[in-house]
Amino acid sequence: MAEELAEGLVAGGATRPAGFLADGVFCGIKEYDASLEKRDVGCLVSERPATVAGVYTKNKVKAAPVLLDQERMQRGTTRGIVYCSGNANACTGDQGMANAREMTALLAAQVGVDAEDILVCSTGLIGHQLPMEIVREGISRLAPAKKRHHEAATAMLTTDEWPKEAAAQFEANGTTYAVGGMCKGAAMIHPNMATMLAYLTTDAPVARDFLHATLKRVVDDSFHMISVDGDTSTNDTVLVLANGAAGGPEIDGGAAGAALESALRAVAVFLAKEIVRNAEGATKVFGVEVRGAASLDAARTIGRSVASSSLVKTAVLGSDPNWGRIMCAAGYSGVDFDPDKSSLWLEDILLFHNGTPTDFDEDAASALLDKKQSMFILDLADGDATSTAWGCDLTTEYVIFNSDYRT
Amino acid sequence: MAEELAEGLVAGGATRPAGFLADGVFCGIKEYDASLEKRDVGCLVSERPATVAGVYTKNKVKAAPVLLDQERMQRGTTRGIVYCSGNANACTGDQGMANAREMTALLAAQVGVDAEDILVCSTGLIGHQLPMEIVREGISRLAPAKKRHHEAATAMLTTDEWPKEAAAQFEANGTTYAVGGMCKGAAMIHPNMATMLAYLTTDAPVARDFLHATLKRVVDDSFHMISVDGDTSTNDTVLVLANGAAGGPEIDGGAAGAALESALRAVAVFLAKEIVRNAEGATKVFGVEVRGAASLDAARTIGRSVASSSLVKTAVLGSDPNWGRIMCAAGYSGVDFDPDKSSLWLEDILLFHNGTPTDFDEDAASALLDKKQSMFILDLADGDATSTAWGCDLTTEYVIFNSDYRT
Repeated sequence: MAEELAEGLVAGGATRPAGFLADGVFCGIKEYDASLEKRDVGCLVSERPATVAGVYTKNKVKAAPVLLDQERMQRGTTRGIVYCSGNANACTGDQGMANAREMTALLAAQVGVDAEDILVCSTGLIGHQLPMEIVREGISRLAPAKKRHHEAATAMLTTDEWPKEAAAQFEANGTTYAVGGMCKGAAMIHPNMATMLAYLTTDAPVARDFLHATLKRVVDDSFHMISVDGDTSTNDTVLVLANGAAGGPEIDGGAAGAALESALRAVAVFLAKEIVRNAEGATKVFGVEVRGAASLDAARTIGRSVASSSLVKTAVLGSDPNWGRIMCAAGYSGVDFDPDKSSLWLEDILLFHNGTPTDFDEDAASALLDKKQSMFILDLADGDATSTAWGCDLTTEYVIFNSDYRT
Repeated sequence: MAEELAEGLVAGGATRPAGFLADGVFCGIKEYDASLEKRDVGCLVSERPATVAGVYTKNKVKAAPVLLDQERMQRGTTRGIVYCSGNANACTGDQGMANAREMTALLAAQVGVDAEDILVCSTGLIGHQLPMEIVREGISRLAPAKKRHHEAATAMLTTDEWPKEAAAQFEANGTTYAVGGMCKGAAMIHPNMATMLAYLTTDAPVARDFLHATLKRVVDDSFHMISVDGDTSTNDTVLVLANGAAGGPEIDGGAAGAALESALRAVAVFLAKEIVRNAEGATKVFGVEVRGAASLDAARTIGRSVASSSLVKTAVLGSDPNWGRIMCAAGYSGVDFDPDKSSLWLEDILLFHNGTPTDFDEDAASALLDKKQSMFILDLADGDATSTAWGCDLTTEYVIFNSDYRT
């Protein structure tokens, strides 16, 4: 189940900002799951051209939709995104590129714009051609004017158990603007993107370069700081669309830019943590706050290394405060630091102090790890930079799920 | 169970070369396991000063024995190694360094050499001080002159299920020389070393610089090409001791050097594969042969990335020829290559050809993955370099084992 509204968020999703439409339908790319009513084809449409920025997987093997979107991003604006789940359209050669183009042409015809005005995403199994007959039929049934953001959010899901949506508001230049978003995760989730799709929207008018720079900073603090299994997928995409439907002068920095960034970050961090919370087989989420690092990059790298460690993840599963595995994962992150100046806490329990083990209460530490969410704090005493990474436990369910033939 | 003698190997272990002694006893650092008769304190001693070279963990958090050995390697020769299992003596501060020094002093006194002539290793739980009272008692009972190489090999083991030993022979300058070795693995096993200790021996006389360069090349092809869980430990150490007991001129290259390297490689590759075969919870081993890479480094990096992927490892567990996960893991390795020129085989079944999926026989591919060992071959069509990495399946047993409180 989705969490209660977190601090700084408001109700709604990607269509909360003015001028955004969405829908999702089921066409049969994946098996129908009645309990979740998951769709498998969806769209997010802006009633007016929206300034767009994107961050994509760094995987050298990029899915056809990723390659097409990267090309179309050069235009600077878009009118929407068409997407499907259950098939990644990756490792599919020329036919895959043609299918991705056709998906955009089909939605474009319905909305009355050029195919080049539409972006496309896919997520699911790698190495199979899209079943275009049913995809075409599905796209023909999309009715974005109905603004069914919840249905649109379910149409992104693969093995996710619930849709992930969030919205926030900010004030700038005397106007109240909205920010919204939806995403999917499940597995192949690792810094530098994941089998992860996220669309963020705002009705604020935003300068293109500023939007891109802001998105990059926000993603570095959210989607890039989570890990499920260390696998970086072929399809990961985060897109932000700013359509200016709420009016006012273009935002390109200053107090208005800071307010926009803060709202986008609230939505993105919430969505990123939702991905970890709903990771395949996960039962617990843990944070790794790295303090006193020499640089932000050092703090992030160490945090991600700890959050990704199979041995840390299994220790969290077993509520075992086996902190040596955390120091070990920090040590192999590639970042230079002095273990003899470092200290480590689990919440308020000091485990390791200036390079030496403490005589802590193991039962109390284990009880903290029994909770659904816990936080490790590693102080390197090496500078002022701080960052938090998020991981989940590694469970037998993850293994069983991913060893099931052709998941 | 240990495998049949592999090609190029002869019977025996680290004491097969002349002039090497060894023993192992149980003193109580770990719980006694009657079925395996595992010891927990051991030694490997050379009757004469042996030229020594070492490769250590790249983890920034290095255990006390690693730090001490790195210092003592400056001497260029050693008389032996004392070691214990069940406790890693890592993250243990000044007391840990003092305990590591004392272990060497105790063996040195028994053998009649200086403490500085002895190296030390530990493996096991991180963050606990060694129980020196029982360690002292254990070392006092070591009787290396009995050459109990099998007992010595069990004294390195943590969660390993069998001792890992190998030996080989080579001819050089009219003399038959022997090479031997023993190692331990189990988990925290990842390129750039592992919770892995390996000692290699030879009775050939070898020049120090040549021995070091040879060891590095051999380790790059063996212990650095395996992965169990992506965790690089605090204690990993590979040592080679060349005591020259079989006489002859010093080997420093040429045909004699090549013969030495080939024998060392046979022993090291066998031992490395034994570690993967006996990884915590593993039921199958798979190889990833990367061909046609632009450089050896590129081939190795891609192979290790595939062998380390949780999603590839779970697919192997389920005998699922879900080859998209392999292309995905190759793609996020960080190496630049062209997916559209790449082809992938499982043994002799072509799965992906020049960037396009093939219509292969899935049942036949799945049957190949049911075997205890299988091989993926990825041809990048980008150069002449080839390398093979080795991984194991990820099982529920790995998860259960490592989530058990304080393993």
